[in-house]
Amino acid sequence: MTPPPGTLDWAPDPSADPTTYAYTFGGVAPVASVRPGTVVRTWTMDCFGGRVRKTSDLASEVCDPRLLNPQSGPFFVEGARPGDTLAVHFISIEPREAWGVSSTVPFFGSLTATPTTAMLHPALLERTWIYQIDRAERVVRYVAADTDFTAALPLDPMHGTVGVAPALGEVRSSLAPGDWGGNMDTPEMRAGVTCYLGVNVEGGLFSLGDGHARQGEGETCGVAVECAMDTTLILDVISGSPTAWPRLESDDYLMTTGSARPLEDAFRIAHQQMVLWVAELTGMSTIDAYQYVSQAALTPIANVVDTNYTVVCKIPKSLLKGVVAMGGMHDRMRRAAAAWRG
Amino acid sequence: MTPPPGTLDWAPDPSADPTTYAYTFGGVAPVASVRPGTVVRTWTMDCFGGRVRKTSDLASEVCDPRLLNPQSGPFFVEGARPGDTLAVHFISIEPREAWGVSSTVPFFGSLTATPTTAMLHPALLERTWIYQIDRAERVVRYVAADTDFTAALPLDPMHGTVGVAPALGEVRSSLAPGDWGGNMDTPEMRAGVTCYLGVNVEGGLFSLGDGHARQGEGETCGVAVECAMDTTLILDVISGSPTAWPRLESDDYLMTTGSARPLEDAFRIAHQQMVLWVAELTGMSTIDAYQYVSQAALTPIANVVDTNYTVVCKIPKSLLKGVVAMGGMHDRMRRAAAAWRG
Amino acid sequence: MTPPPGTLDWAPDPSADPTTYAYTFGGVAPVASVRPGTVVRTWTMDCFGGRVRKTSDLASEVCDPRLLNPQSGPFFVEGARPGDTLAVHFISIEPREAWGVSSTVPFFGSLTATPTTAMLHPALLERTWIYQIDRAERVVRYVAADTDFTAALPLDPMHGTVGVAPALGEVRSSLAPGDWGGNMDTPEMRAGVTCYLGVNVEGGLFSLGDGHARQGEGETCGVAVECAMDTTLILDVISGSPTAWPRLESDDYLMTTGSARPLEDAFRIAHQQMVLWVAELTGMSTIDAYQYVSQAALTPIANVVDTNYTVVCKIPKSLLKGVVAMGGMHDRMRRAAAAWRG
Amino acid sequence: MTPPPGTLDWAPDPSADPTTYAYTFGGVAPVASVRPGTVVRTWTMDCFGGRVRKTSDLASEVCDPRLLNPQSGPFFVEGARPGDTLAVHFISIEPREAWGVSSTVPFFGSLTATPTTAMLHPALLERTWIYQIDRAERVVRYVAADTDFTAALPLDPMHGTVGVAPALGEVRSSLAPGDWGGNMDTPEMRAGVTCYLGVNVEGGLFSLGDGHARQGEGETCGVAVECAMDTTLILDVISGSPTAWPRLESDDYLMTTGSARPLEDAFRIAHQQMVLWVAELTGMSTIDAYQYVSQAALTPIANVVDTNYTVVCKIPKSLLKGVVAMGGMHDRMRRAAAAWRG
Repeated sequence: MTPPPGTLDWAPDPSADPTTYAYTFGGVAPVASVRPGTVVRTWTMDCFGGRVRKTSDLASEVCDPRLLNPQSGPFFVEGARPGDTLAVHFISIEPREAWGVSSTVPFFGSLTATPTTAMLHPALLERTWIYQIDRAERVVRYVAADTDFTAALPLDPMHGTVGVAPALGEVRSSLAPGDWGGNMDTPEMRAGVTCYLGVNVEGGLFSLGDGHARQGEGETCGVAVECAMDTTLILDVISGSPTAWPRLESDDYLMTTGSARPLEDAFRIAHQQMVLWVAELTGMSTIDAYQYVSQAALTPIANVVDTNYTVVCKIPKSLLKGVVAMGGMHDRMRRAAAAWRG
Repeated sequence: MTPPPGTLDWAPDPSADPTTYAYTFGGVAPVASVRPGTVVRTWTMDCFGGRVRKTSDLASEVCDPRLLNPQSGPFFVEGARPGDTLAVHFISIEPREAWGVSSTVPFFGSLTATPTTAMLHPALLERTWIYQIDRAERVVRYVAADTDFTAALPLDPMHGTVGVAPALGEVRSSLAPGDWGGNMDTPEMRAGVTCYLGVNVEGGLFSLGDGHARQGEGETCGVAVECAMDTTLILDVISGSPTAWPRLESDDYLMTTGSARPLEDAFRIAHQQMVLWVAELTGMSTIDAYQYVSQAALTPIANVVDTNYTVVCKIPKSLLKGVVAMGGMHDRMRRAAAAWRG
Repeated sequence: MTPPPGTLDWAPDPSADPTTYAYTFGGVAPVASVRPGTVVRTWTMDCFGGRVRKTSDLASEVCDPRLLNPQSGPFFVEGARPGDTLAVHFISIEPREAWGVSSTVPFFGSLTATPTTAMLHPALLERTWIYQIDRAERVVRYVAADTDFTAALPLDPMHGTVGVAPALGEVRSSLAPGDWGGNMDTPEMRAGVTCYLGVNVEGGLFSLGDGHARQGEGETCGVAVECAMDTTLILDVISGSPTAWPRLESDDYLMTTGSARPLEDAFRIAHQQMVLWVAELTGMSTIDAYQYVSQAALTPIANVVDTNYTVVCKIPKSLLKGVVAMGGMHDRMRRAAAAWRG
Repeated sequence: MTPPPGTLDWAPDPSADPTTYAYTFGGVAPVASVRPGTVVRTWTMDCFGGRVRKTSDLASEVCDPRLLNPQSGPFFVEGARPGDTLAVHFISIEPREAWGVSSTVPFFGSLTATPTTAMLHPALLERTWIYQIDRAERVVRYVAADTDFTAALPLDPMHGTVGVAPALGEVRSSLAPGDWGGNMDTPEMRAGVTCYLGVNVEGGLFSLGDGHARQGEGETCGVAVECAMDTTLILDVISGSPTAWPRLESDDYLMTTGSARPLEDAFRIAHQQMVLWVAELTGMSTIDAYQYVSQAALTPIANVVDTNYTVVCKIPKSLLKGVVAMGGMHDRMRRAAAAWRG
């Protein structure tokens, strides 16, 4: 029987000066130190820091661009060293309030000119939508602004931003995804999933934020149903085993990610990583694994809007004959979560 | 009650000179003329023209590069004119034989240098895999070459190549996808689905080929589980209604496609088309539809290996309140298919 | 002494039905057959077929999109066979009239949304500019529409579109560039230059058009200073020697081209081709040639607006110790041109 | 008459622990504080920190990947504040020693798979070339490894890496280029040129490195003729005037840069910035400036190998009727340089 793990509670202080929150991966002092195996109970502010609360609030007017996407953390994980892998298991991810918010933001999104896909168009219309989050019915309610169209979409809470301090001494904005994780914006980062992140600095310096009540694949307009999130997770360390790009594991799937531009490079990273992982786990040669992944992969796009674009590659574990990945970490964390819940 | 539609049987002649098959969209005389509403029963050769049949057959040795991906057709659809939309409903798509074939092809695929992503590497190892197709068990059986790994993957038959003659007098290789359809290589092109294609020339000149017993999303190595395919479909015309890029409809989903490079442009096309379609169908403003699609879309990648890359955007019809797309063509074709089956 | 070559005169008929002009590479019957070594005197219509003649003419109103970029030709070159290389030496390229035209075209250009870089923006302002071409002063005169800014830019006449029939039975719009040449839009295609094109079909089927009095590198807005052009050229054949992608040679430079998307793939093609060419010509190993090209190359962008983007890689012949490329064809054609001029 | 500016001498200490050098933009304490207008005399180590000195030294063996591309600086410029522009005028850039070095580095360069353009190929051959730098003859001498080919290429010294601390609290590796400057690798960064950089933090925190005795456009294999460099420059501030992306000015040209992936986005940034700059300087409307830049621009590619790719757009000042950019800063700095030289 697994003894229940210890618990750390840490909460952001919404009354503090917003300039004191963490807006980067790297470059921020840890808020707490945790032993491997500890359950962390925390919550995260929405990506606007709570400043966009009604349809008349426009992000470009009420938000300081330097203060977007505040993160909870970073947490220093004892014993985590460069070359190790940090395992993050999400026990629960639940909207903290009964509302979420989305918007179009000038020169941000996949169907608009941006500062990098630079053009001569004026910005698209900026607008804010407020969603009712019905936690009992497990839906989010959309209300069109210009007509009476309404709809209920399945609630599917997740974290857009999950990561550690980057390599090479870099400090990266919480708006960027990359090999340190960060703003990957994949709907696969939901409760029940374990995320594996390569450790680049002592303690890893894990933080998270950008809760989404749900999002479409690709996050087309650049903004999901953003909300403050109550989240419980376990942090653990796989010593001596590096992870080049963030990976995920659920009860049913192994997943790799790639974050790059152009989008085909994100695809290439995720699929190369999956080919190498499948070869390692099954003992197949690389070319046999390449062939097998070609017929077996699911490839949900995560985002086509952030500083880098993110693609996820998924393989059903049922097609891998019960191989055990990452030394069985996911199953151990599932058991620990169950023990903790009591 | 719907009267059963008429039937046209047309079959390729595998004993004919292979140079007489159709390898392009456009530039080929029609093999038959059909009235709108006709059921077409045909079969398609595999993408290698049946020349790669055992693991010792290498495509680069046994295939003429000018004779890849033969198509069945083209079919001239009476009354189809530029500005109309051709509707193609797949009644059934079934592997014709109990085997399929896949391979790695020199300088082709997503994880290798290619003639356009030109580099200085030698080609990856060329290899052929033969799959057993078990039509009773509905699986395809993979056998690794270098180890004893084997696996059964779900059978999920589809056509990689479906299209009409292009616009601007162009003639395009059956290896290329684009706004005329062609080699989109999406697993969504399965039985029960209706595909909508904009008509560019009199009669549309529809053809199809490239059957896959199954493929992963992205078709990583560039080759699916290729097989000859027995296919039954209905062809019909929506007059006076153009379709800019191929669309699909199943009982449960509306789907748009985009085919372009880089991959983000394929994503942009598919999502812009979906935003405009959702706005048209629901009466929402474009910006409201942009927001809604951003939270509702699924985005399975089709291929990241062909001349253009293809992305599909899917929206559940359940989230669109029973809107009727394309004048109800999909439901009518479903009923016609049922009547034809008797 | 070189005997003067024979001469063929062929001219488009501007009074003919515009639908009878050539708008594709491939798919058009030859207008004339020429022996290798023949001088061809012709002229080409501007890319709008002469329909945009004053600032109040907008291309979207006066042009049929199916009738853009008419080509002169195709010319059947006797003896040219697949696997050969066609050599085209430009003796002279001179504007036919004293005016040229440019414009912004809705959803076309590098700084606007397009049908493939699909977005939700309305089109940029459509506008037409008329340039005076001063052939004596060798300048083109720009006149701003909204202010009194004027400027004289150096006249530098060239052909945007030069090519042969494509491989694989394809027929490609004259708006597209690729390995068959076509709409490469490089300012390097000027008088004194020899262009080498791989032959894909009997006779090669060479045609040209899209004269530019000048253009910037990249052709930013998508339209150069377009004009009808009087052009004299020599056609010849290098038998038994294929050319994968169009190459150019001037008295001072060897040049390779690549046309693809994304733009880095066009760069990769051009530079891979140059590395292989330099290795072949100097006897260097590939890796030594890679190093040398890395320090020696100039890389003027051709276009970032067409169906494919085009990059040119240039190496000064002075850095290649007098190597002779393509069997000395360029020098022979220079001498033939001199003999022809008399 | 301009009084000669003051001088600051600062030199890296090659005997110090290499981990103490600056390898990032941002995140490093300034080495000195200078008043605007000060001449800085310094030198920079080569990109390998001097560790690759002979053909048998391979970078992957003798270099720590965390200690590549050391920078000299950062210099705190008094009075520089976010929203200002830092002007950097290069008085002289001269190789410090009579040799330079280049190499192929595993999985780095434009014609190889890389960690982001991830594939399954093994690395290309790693090799080191040593160049003799003849400062009297103004050439660098190339010697092929596998044959007896040798060549002399014009000496054209420049800095690959020039930048300030980034915005949003980011710290970026000296291997990356972006809107803060950094590793742009453009041959235009030579003596006589003024570089304008937007200031993001107090003091700007300017540093530079990565001297190249010369490089080709695009830096094809990823490594130029790398050398330690003696450099003299002037630092000044344009208060209250931001610069979104690095710009350059020579006696003859105005230049804009863009650094992004895919390469067309780098092109778009550079050309959008040039259109806006030309409009501002001439008073032309944006659409008139778009047209004018389309006919006037030169577009030398800088690099297609770094974390972001860089494109430069150049317009001859002669085509801009003597407009004065940046308040005449370049001319003032030229005069100050002359006065300083005495």
